[in-house]
Amino acid sequence: MQKVFVTGAAGFIGSNVVDRLLADGRVVVGWDNFSTGQQPFLAGALTQPGFALIRGDNLDVPALTAAMRGCDFVFHLAANADVQYGPRNPRRDIDQNTNATFHVLEAMRANDIKRIAFSSTGAVYGEASVIPTPENEPFPIQTSLYGASKVASEGFVSAYGEAFGFESYIFRFVSILGERYTHGHVFDFYKQLIEHPGWLRVLGDGSQRKSYLYVQDCIDAMMHVIESGTAIGAKHHTKIYNLGTPEYVQVNDSIRFISEALGLSPELRYTGGDRGWIGDNPFVFLDTAEIRATGWRAKLTIEQGIVKTLRWLEANRWVFEARK
Amino acid sequence: MQKVFVTGAAGFIGSNVVDRLLADGRVVVGWDNFSTGQQPFLAGALTQPGFALIRGDNLDVPALTAAMRGCDFVFHLAANADVQYGPRNPRRDIDQNTNATFHVLEAMRANDIKRIAFSSTGAVYGEASVIPTPENEPFPIQTSLYGASKVASEGFVSAYGEAFGFESYIFRFVSILGERYTHGHVFDFYKQLIEHPGWLRVLGDGSQRKSYLYVQDCIDAMMHVIESGTAIGAKHHTKIYNLGTPEYVQVNDSIRFISEALGLSPELRYTGGDRGWIGDNPFVFLDTAEIRATGWRAKLTIEQGIVKTLRWLEANRWVFEARK
Repeated sequence: MQKVFVTGAAGFIGSNVVDRLLADGRVVVGWDNFSTGQQPFLAGALTQPGFALIRGDNLDVPALTAAMRGCDFVFHLAANADVQYGPRNPRRDIDQNTNATFHVLEAMRANDIKRIAFSSTGAVYGEASVIPTPENEPFPIQTSLYGASKVASEGFVSAYGEAFGFESYIFRFVSILGERYTHGHVFDFYKQLIEHPGWLRVLGDGSQRKSYLYVQDCIDAMMHVIESGTAIGAKHHTKIYNLGTPEYVQVNDSIRFISEALGLSPELRYTGGDRGWIGDNPFVFLDTAEIRATGWRAKLTIEQGIVKTLRWLEANRWVFEARK
Repeated sequence: MQKVFVTGAAGFIGSNVVDRLLADGRVVVGWDNFSTGQQPFLAGALTQPGFALIRGDNLDVPALTAAMRGCDFVFHLAANADVQYGPRNPRRDIDQNTNATFHVLEAMRANDIKRIAFSSTGAVYGEASVIPTPENEPFPIQTSLYGASKVASEGFVSAYGEAFGFESYIFRFVSILGERYTHGHVFDFYKQLIEHPGWLRVLGDGSQRKSYLYVQDCIDAMMHVIESGTAIGAKHHTKIYNLGTPEYVQVNDSIRFISEALGLSPELRYTGGDRGWIGDNPFVFLDTAEIRATGWRAKLTIEQGIVKTLRWLEANRWVFEARK
């Protein structure tokens, strides 16, 4: 890995990956359409000679192909990550996730680039029948447009691996949080508590069990297996890893962590029901034995990750304006 | 089911479904872009007052949406079915299968149509780890672009079911054969034996084990579960069925059936290797316990289906010209 192409480079995870790669001495080409990406996240990267930023969209194949020229590894992290609003705009999921991934693969093929890391999601398990859910969970039924668009992308990534001899890493993330986090429940809860510290609207009944992973732990895990080249000897040259910690928390636990950290005692107003939205999975807990077998361990617990995220949001309240 | 929209209506399976629906007294709107469809397959249907044929492409959403108006059930059978040539033209798989399916779902939503039957494939299992392969096989890695494009389509079909309350039937076919068969190994072998009866070029080493189902048996199975409404009470309103017979044959067996039926003894020239092409699965055998539990049984064995297909091809040699 010498010159790395990063899609979604101005996003939450993307910009953290860019910084890590630069710190490791790689040359990095960042690619983002700035639909949700934030230029300030790349402020540090842009001061470095090894970094180039190109503004472009994954649906523009010629520009994408040209931008990727000369790279030897692709982190494909660009995505529509709004799980909740899928049914309001299904086209966004298929275009920004599935078709975008296909275009990235086509651009790689045109440039003879054969190594890829792809950010998938635990949402591909739908409502898993086995919990904690291993990578070889029984073939699930997709219950969200987001999950469907990601499982579609996974399929093309691995089929390209088989057809064109790619070395492919697919990472099924739990919810990632940490510095530069710009959406998700910690973001939503903190935003509400700025506006009205006395109460909190909670989707569902608060009993939903969810898993989270700190972004630097997530990046550690990805870099660890990529540098070990675990996909090289794998079946079909594709390795699929769940990424998460060996724990989960209830939404109510998370509210407690956040309230305690802020010194607040908000009244909780539940919308009711066992899930937050259509396609929401009330229990997300991934079996991470596979990634732990490589020696990787998360450094932060879920609680530590949540509090760290909160502290970053407190110091960066501009993101609430930027994400309006 | 009163007025049924059939995509791929001029195709092999589509035209047979159209004829069955008309025989059952349904009103049918056939939709086909005639990229591979054959107008002669609809000669009978076109004489019937309950049938309308509309020429159009699944990538043309406004036309698709308009054509579907007033229907209450959709058989989405249109697809690029050329598994073997995926790597030559990957865009065909994602456009004609994945994006096309998404457009069909969007057109259904626009028309408030909530019942769908979708033709998927055993190729979604990649190289299955369990044989015979049940519907809940461990989450497979996609090994062909065709399989990837179909698993992507399945995901959107079921996610729409969850988001918009569809009643969805997904059928994972083994290779279907019978009247109006226009591609696949019987087609290829017979075509070769017309041109050179003395020898046959065989992809791979002939030991590949494959499964086939006669098209009328396939349609019987689909109509049986749709009319029983098995998806209504199913989890996520989606039922997924493998369709096949409880047997498989080697390519060499199939060659023997064909040679005997034609009274030929061709010299066999194998290209070698354990598979015919990149992404070919050397052993396809689906567990059909789920569909058999509904009471359906295949009437024809694989051998009978192959011979029936051959007899149809002998009587319809025009398709070799039409498919050039």
